[in-house]
Amino acid sequence: MTATLITNIGELTTNVGTPDDPCGTRRDAAVLIEGERIAWVGSAAEARTPQDVRVEVVDAEGRAVIPGFVDSHTHLVFAGDRADEFEARMTGTPYAAGGIRRTVAATREASDDALRRRLRAFVAELHAQGTTTFEIKTGYGLTVADEERLARLAAEVTPEVTFLGAHVVPQEYADRRDDYVELVCGAMLRACAPHSRWVDVFCETGAFTPEESRRVLAAGIAHGLEPRVHGNQLGLGEGVRLAVAMGAASVDHCTYLDDADVAALASSLTVATLLPGVEFSTRQPYPDARRLIDAGVTVAIASDCNPGSSFTSSMPLMIALAVREMGMTPAEAVWAATAGGARALRRDDVGAIAPGLRADLVLLDAPTRTHLAYRPGVPLVGRVWKDGAAL
Amino acid sequence: MTATLITNIGELTTNVGTPDDPCGTRRDAAVLIEGERIAWVGSAAEARTPQDVRVEVVDAEGRAVIPGFVDSHTHLVFAGDRADEFEARMTGTPYAAGGIRRTVAATREASDDALRRRLRAFVAELHAQGTTTFEIKTGYGLTVADEERLARLAAEVTPEVTFLGAHVVPQEYADRRDDYVELVCGAMLRACAPHSRWVDVFCETGAFTPEESRRVLAAGIAHGLEPRVHGNQLGLGEGVRLAVAMGAASVDHCTYLDDADVAALASSLTVATLLPGVEFSTRQPYPDARRLIDAGVTVAIASDCNPGSSFTSSMPLMIALAVREMGMTPAEAVWAATAGGARALRRDDVGAIAPGLRADLVLLDAPTRTHLAYRPGVPLVGRVWKDGAAL
Repeated sequence: MTATLITNIGELTTNVGTPDDPCGTRRDAAVLIEGERIAWVGSAAEARTPQDVRVEVVDAEGRAVIPGFVDSHTHLVFAGDRADEFEARMTGTPYAAGGIRRTVAATREASDDALRRRLRAFVAELHAQGTTTFEIKTGYGLTVADEERLARLAAEVTPEVTFLGAHVVPQEYADRRDDYVELVCGAMLRACAPHSRWVDVFCETGAFTPEESRRVLAAGIAHGLEPRVHGNQLGLGEGVRLAVAMGAASVDHCTYLDDADVAALASSLTVATLLPGVEFSTRQPYPDARRLIDAGVTVAIASDCNPGSSFTSSMPLMIALAVREMGMTPAEAVWAATAGGARALRRDDVGAIAPGLRADLVLLDAPTRTHLAYRPGVPLVGRVWKDGAAL
Repeated sequence: MTATLITNIGELTTNVGTPDDPCGTRRDAAVLIEGERIAWVGSAAEARTPQDVRVEVVDAEGRAVIPGFVDSHTHLVFAGDRADEFEARMTGTPYAAGGIRRTVAATREASDDALRRRLRAFVAELHAQGTTTFEIKTGYGLTVADEERLARLAAEVTPEVTFLGAHVVPQEYADRRDDYVELVCGAMLRACAPHSRWVDVFCETGAFTPEESRRVLAAGIAHGLEPRVHGNQLGLGEGVRLAVAMGAASVDHCTYLDDADVAALASSLTVATLLPGVEFSTRQPYPDARRLIDAGVTVAIASDCNPGSSFTSSMPLMIALAVREMGMTPAEAVWAATAGGARALRRDDVGAIAPGLRADLVLLDAPTRTHLAYRPGVPLVGRVWKDGAAL
């Protein structure tokens, strides 16, 4: 077993907090990692190195340490990109976009190896930016065989695989959407469930109706998957209330909410996952995180990294946007990007720094976590540990 | 002499362009660097390695190459930070900030060595993000001795040093501002001019009046410095017209402009330098780059990296914000962050990729420059060359 002592931490965000300080902030702190787990957290003055193992001592020189980011919403298995569509959208040029279907076509054509290489490059990109836990959705295959391979490839790099056959109705089913829902709930689900933990559905006008969404989630649950929902992205709708009713771990987007949605979330265990990269890259209005937090809703933020609406994987930028645009304090935003993401994935072994948890930590090149919002765009992720290993 | 051939460049932004394509885009291109300069630009198929020197061949594998960023507006010599002030501003907490004066106090107390270490860390940060040319202003000393040492320290790392004694009236001169302007135009200027190329003034309500600003610029010009201006940041005012009248290379901020300002800029050689990091970090409205470009004004974008209003050094984020918030196309934003910055510094040896120019280039981890806006926050700067040397 190896051990690492990180000491002289100027500001440690443990997320083992109090109502006044949910980040559980400690000054002049130290963290001892043994093997894959955190062994001890305390003051730098009291830090001791264990005698029986080789210990690497890392002097944080007053800098900040936070838990590794937990990105609970990504779509990282795909081929191609849609830079042209982005540019057209940003410059107001009318564009007859195939949208998701363009990525579906490119992804179906790509070999497993090509998808795997791209995926591994994304994983390296996430790690370099301090993301140590991430979810990946299927949804660019939309055939039984293609969804199965996307789930299988995703499972090679994360346990948090989400079956999203109900991402959009594919072109070839445009005139028989019932048949597609039937396929998703039947053969496609059976093929993907062995590789997946989660079932998800895009419950939105233009995607799947509340009744279709309910069928998909119920089928997934019957196959042992846990539900999560894309909802209320483009307008008011049933997504949030469906998510709460079905006991979803999270409902993602939450851009348009009425009072009943907020009340439903506040009285549930369902996390509201906000995805400000989408609003940044589509010029939509940002969700109102302040309203949700003030109502008592648990809020996570995630990247939604995908080639259409949000091709960013930067959790630091999500934090900066949450502070600039969504009314969150820097502490709330950092909490939402770490502990919030862990709640959205029902993970109690990540998203915080405490004895027994996975040793997933980020040493920032900055004295406080606030700098993640105060210094937007600047790569402040210094060192990253995942499962106790320096990446 | 060493040489480097960068070949298989999928998209090369030369900035040797046409009205339809100011970026002078070449596909399947190659660039040959000899010593500190670009020796040849052409198609990958025609690339040849010179016979008489050792050549490193870099296969860009279809990725994009752009000129190194030219950040024409920074304030990088200072001590301390103001994360608390940022947090208070973002969360609406009333805050009795000393603003710039807090940084002045911390900077005056810091040793040359401490300032130098911090400055060098910033230079490394800029280089890592693809910035190969940058300007640095004084303005956190505000005594003859302190301004002199800030100019001297800045000159250790860049030829583009700007004397900004007229940043703000320091506390000790609050009741006798004429004396301070006199000092700036006299002893302080004499001390700083040997280390400086530029003279700048913050012409804004609350800082310096148009008449004071004119005095400062005229005094600087009389000492051989070239003028530039901070203006029209917080409201309409005389800054832009003063800059044009004095033949300034650039007027920076340009957030609030009337039609006369735009017309004055359009009929001048003065560059309008926009600083979207400020609007991001202060929640001010963004300047309207579209209006300026459509009127024929030359637009640059820069970081304004400083601990108060914009503590970012990320030119990629400035590009993303210019596209998201200021109506620029991705190509216009990349041009403004490279060639535009060079114009704002009256430099014809950087900001473009052509034979004879300095070999300052960035290889992106992306197939197009559009990805800098399409993938906001993601570190896409792969390799950086400055004066022909890989950083």
